[in-house]
Amino acid sequence: MEIIRSNFKDNLNKVYEAIEEADFLAIDGEFSGISDGPSVSTLTNGFDTPEERYQKLKKHSMDFLLFQFGLCSFKYDHTEAKYIMKSFNFYIFPKPFNRSSPDVKFVCQSSSIDFLANQGFDFNKVFRNGIPYLNQEEERQLREQYDERRSQANGAGTLSYISPNATKCPVTIPEDQKKFIERVVEQIEDLIQNEENKNLQLEPSIPGIIYLCHYCFQKERYIVISKVDEEERKRREQQKQAKEQEELSDAVGFSRVIHAIANSGKLVVGHNMLLDVMHTIHQFYCPLPEVSGLVSLQVIYKMYPEIRSNSSEIYCGWKLLDTKLMASTQPFKEIINNTSLAELEKRLKEIPFNPPEVESAEGFPSYDTASEQLHEAGYDAYITGLCFISMANYLGSFLSPPKNHVSARSKLIEPFFNKLFLMRVMDIPYLNLEGPDLQPKRDHVLHVTFPKEWKTSDLYQLFSAFGNIQVSWIDDTSAFVSLSQPEQVQIAVNTSRYAESYRIQTYAEYVEKKHEEKQAKRKWTEDSWKEMERKRLKTQYTPYIPQSRYYCVNSFTATSTMGKRSMSPIQEETGSDDVEEREIQDTELDETDCYAESVPEGRKRAKKFKKVKKEQDPTGKSNVAESAFLSFSCLEPL
Amino acid sequence: MEIIRSNFKDNLNKVYEAIEEADFLAIDGEFSGISDGPSVSTLTNGFDTPEERYQKLKKHSMDFLLFQFGLCSFKYDHTEAKYIMKSFNFYIFPKPFNRSSPDVKFVCQSSSIDFLANQGFDFNKVFRNGIPYLNQEEERQLREQYDERRSQANGAGTLSYISPNATKCPVTIPEDQKKFIERVVEQIEDLIQNEENKNLQLEPSIPGIIYLCHYCFQKERYIVISKVDEEERKRREQQKQAKEQEELSDAVGFSRVIHAIANSGKLVVGHNMLLDVMHTIHQFYCPLPEVSGLVSLQVIYKMYPEIRSNSSEIYCGWKLLDTKLMASTQPFKEIINNTSLAELEKRLKEIPFNPPEVESAEGFPSYDTASEQLHEAGYDAYITGLCFISMANYLGSFLSPPKNHVSARSKLIEPFFNKLFLMRVMDIPYLNLEGPDLQPKRDHVLHVTFPKEWKTSDLYQLFSAFGNIQVSWIDDTSAFVSLSQPEQVQIAVNTSRYAESYRIQTYAEYVEKKHEEKQAKRKWTEDSWKEMERKRLKTQYTPYIPQSRYYCVNSFTATSTMGKRSMSPIQEETGSDDVEEREIQDTELDETDCYAESVPEGRKRAKKFKKVKKEQDPTGKSNVAESAFLSFSCLEPL
Repeated sequence: MEIIRSNFKDNLNKVYEAIEEADFLAIDGEFSGISDGPSVSTLTNGFDTPEERYQKLKKHSMDFLLFQFGLCSFKYDHTEAKYIMKSFNFYIFPKPFNRSSPDVKFVCQSSSIDFLANQGFDFNKVFRNGIPYLNQEEERQLREQYDERRSQANGAGTLSYISPNATKCPVTIPEDQKKFIERVVEQIEDLIQNEENKNLQLEPSIPGIIYLCHYCFQKERYIVISKVDEEERKRREQQKQAKEQEELSDAVGFSRVIHAIANSGKLVVGHNMLLDVMHTIHQFYCPLPEVSGLVSLQVIYKMYPEIRSNSSEIYCGWKLLDTKLMASTQPFKEIINNTSLAELEKRLKEIPFNPPEVESAEGFPSYDTASEQLHEAGYDAYITGLCFISMANYLGSFLSPPKNHVSARSKLIEPFFNKLFLMRVMDIPYLNLEGPDLQPKRDHVLHVTFPKEWKTSDLYQLFSAFGNIQVSWIDDTSAFVSLSQPEQVQIAVNTSRYAESYRIQTYAEYVEKKHEEKQAKRKWTEDSWKEMERKRLKTQYTPYIPQSRYYCVNSFTATSTMGKRSMSPIQEETGSDDVEEREIQDTELDETDCYAESVPEGRKRAKKFKKVKKEQDPTGKSNVAESAFLSFSCLEPL
Repeated sequence: MEIIRSNFKDNLNKVYEAIEEADFLAIDGEFSGISDGPSVSTLTNGFDTPEERYQKLKKHSMDFLLFQFGLCSFKYDHTEAKYIMKSFNFYIFPKPFNRSSPDVKFVCQSSSIDFLANQGFDFNKVFRNGIPYLNQEEERQLREQYDERRSQANGAGTLSYISPNATKCPVTIPEDQKKFIERVVEQIEDLIQNEENKNLQLEPSIPGIIYLCHYCFQKERYIVISKVDEEERKRREQQKQAKEQEELSDAVGFSRVIHAIANSGKLVVGHNMLLDVMHTIHQFYCPLPEVSGLVSLQVIYKMYPEIRSNSSEIYCGWKLLDTKLMASTQPFKEIINNTSLAELEKRLKEIPFNPPEVESAEGFPSYDTASEQLHEAGYDAYITGLCFISMANYLGSFLSPPKNHVSARSKLIEPFFNKLFLMRVMDIPYLNLEGPDLQPKRDHVLHVTFPKEWKTSDLYQLFSAFGNIQVSWIDDTSAFVSLSQPEQVQIAVNTSRYAESYRIQTYAEYVEKKHEEKQAKRKWTEDSWKEMERKRLKTQYTPYIPQSRYYCVNSFTATSTMGKRSMSPIQEETGSDDVEEREIQDTELDETDCYAESVPEGRKRAKKFKKVKKEQDPTGKSNVAESAFLSFSCLEPL
């Protein structure tokens, strides 16, 4: 169901109802761009830590507009043994609603806009009929403004009936206007004296008029002076108040849907949803927190106690699941080659999976997965939901006895909660919203600094003695280079000692130095405290050690004849229909442009997942789920 | 005529022809926003110097996209005594054309987008079918890339036929791929041996393949290896080159129209055209220059000698005329009350003006000025042209004998060349592209600094002893306050000496201090040189002294109950159809919100323009035109 500004209010209760009755929700967003700074390949460096990635996206992705939001509710009908689905496709636009409302500026990235245009995206619908919204601070300010105005009109009643400046600055009436003013004064005196007259309308558009009655001032540019008794005044005041309340509600607009989702406590499913979640918080709640170290999104309610106290359930209620992460994890990753949304949806209809039984609710249009409508947020949310159902149900097949239906409340899927897929990070699969992030060893990784003229081929030449290497660009003059053997690392560092044009250090040295620089800059502030906290947590947490160091990385490794690195890959040229790879728009780059790149070894080394009969352990957690989760430790290409 | 990406090439010659045959051209642009920084009222402070205004627009307006460009050519038909008009409405969008092309990010301002949406602006046409463009630097880079690639393919011919990495980094072929590689090698050997076979197509999408023939690599993700003799190779090379040339031309796209306009040397007319000109240079030529002091736009060809040498005629050729400035100047300003485009067009149809005789050229649609299509750039350009014709012809009525038709080449209009209207500046009507800017005295102006809680009403109170004042906000803690008498200035400064919460200085002191700060920051650089130059010019130039100090200013002076100052006025609320005031979007603010504001005295003091019989003076300049121009010195509300 398409929801725009003109039908939003009429359908809001339908949306609330769908959220309330749902077993789980699926969401998806479309944005006006991805990166306003570095190229996307630099934005998503293969050796970003989760914190670094978060900071980069926060810095370079939040000025874009989330202008389409897909919401799909899934409710399981036990009698019919199928899901009933309600899908909503919202168009969003920050239409200023009055003079003092925020005049939002947002960035558009040509390649993203062009991509959506090619998909038939309707920009006119967004800009002409998008639903407005306010974040919590804007809502608070608007409420305050209304309150202030009201208390002015009520409490200091008399004040609002005199010229605001009268007591402060006596107005000198110019000679040529005196006659006009005298006539107005006469008219007003006449109004007050005369019982029958109730209203006095002054001449419209009188130049230079002194506004005697600010309160009665109308937008239409003439002034009406009314005689009202106390009762009538109160009635008008109440009318006005009710109107204001409705205006406020209208202005909060789409944010009300987001509040309802968060307050529902329902599981929210998304595919590669980190950016969706960040945009949703940034656009409809509050600025993203300045987090450092391991804590990230989840600290919002710690950092903004006023939010917590006002609506603590909002952030405590988030229960997110990323289907791209799920598909990249045991027991799925061995039987799913391509985790892009469209491919995943197709794969999950085939053996050993079962296509989910899903039907549109009455009065809701149904999507046809055969004729794809990819990149409409509502459709993408819908097939994300389908993917989740298939995968959740598949987990049920490992139970004893096997179950065909695994609900969104099942313990089996809990290990996937609040972990968001990290695009293209080689050795850390997710950003953890609920605890410390994973700490990979990276003892086979070098940090190399070099002149800005260098291209990838220069790095290949430099490391030609070390066999296959992988290059992850950081910026124009530095990159991570991962070797196939950690033993080679010290050799590389040693041989580079006397080099003049470039500099090599180990990943550990690089991290240490970066950390020192940071510390030097900082004072003993909130930030330092957090850093301490990070260290404390770090020591408590068993570091994560990847077993395999050789992956088919997504970092870009080709020498392009057109330049150092490709900048804005065009979707239609790459011919890709890979959904979330498109979102980080250099999709096919790796496959098409790179040479001398080996077959992903990981795929070969993948162990067969063994069907094990399990019982529930006393904590209530399924061992299957645990083993699925633990299988992250055997990292392979995602 | 609507020109979009799909019909651009087919109609380009029509556009060239229209420019070539025209007597003059009219232009207009529509942008995705106005200010990404301060509110528009702060962006257009009433006491900006032309340089300050330029710097502010440069800083806060150039990240928006000019996405619709109107061009209207007017050719006078002497036999029929009427103009033949050709109107073009171009949709512009920086669609990236390949992977290495710039991925432009542009800003949208919600209030501007909303305004255009309400006018029925077609965003889908822009984003789906806008014409691409390149500025000169981007064009140069692209040309270089093509040249480099070509020299690689030709000169170092052999190099392009071997694996780019082969000499640098011996590839270790993994055990499991050896068989596959051997088979490929066999196939290639077979191709070389066998006379009959000309092509070899390798299996598509082979994972991890070593690309033996980069040159033959196709986008379609398979590899074709061809045997070609020298002749065939050259033929293919030429084909490729021709294709590249066309690609380059397509990429330069709409910029070719701008080049043609500039190269034509034709008079280009616009209404309130400063932003249009700045956007045009910034988007289709090169970054705007960092000018300081009196020199501004016109220095581009001095600062970028490479542009001058390549196409010196471009900047030397600009001959611009601003119809809003013209209408605000003698002999027009006394008989034209409202210089907004729509109002001006209406006024210029009435006595003493004559509605211009204009007809659409054959095959070109005609606009109906009765049913306004304001804010379509093509239509706005059209009525701007109409306004120019009416005003130019009116100047002919002062000649002896009077002339009904005054051409765009007439000396009568030369005084208006290359002076662009300055929106809302109280005492400097234009930014001069050809010489030093006017220097107003401003001896009745104070610079006031105060706590950020202050509102306009606090300033009124502070200056209540001085009668009528005008406030021009600079930022949250400072404003210019102009008094009605310069004699009051020193009194105000003296009485403020011991004030703690605020600080008052004269305008002259403010300028001096600002200048000192600037100097302190600077080294002896190019900039300092320019400053010297500015001083030199200043001493040569007779300072401009305004005769009247009391105008109905456009600066915002109201106390709003909703906040300190209004931020994003909504067009539909103000109900204005004032075109260029809308562009600086707080149109009706002054009239609707302010109180205790006096009738513009200037209007009363306007001297009747006397019809004088004139002869041409020896310099060839008409005295009428000169007196029209000189009448700036008697400044009144514009």
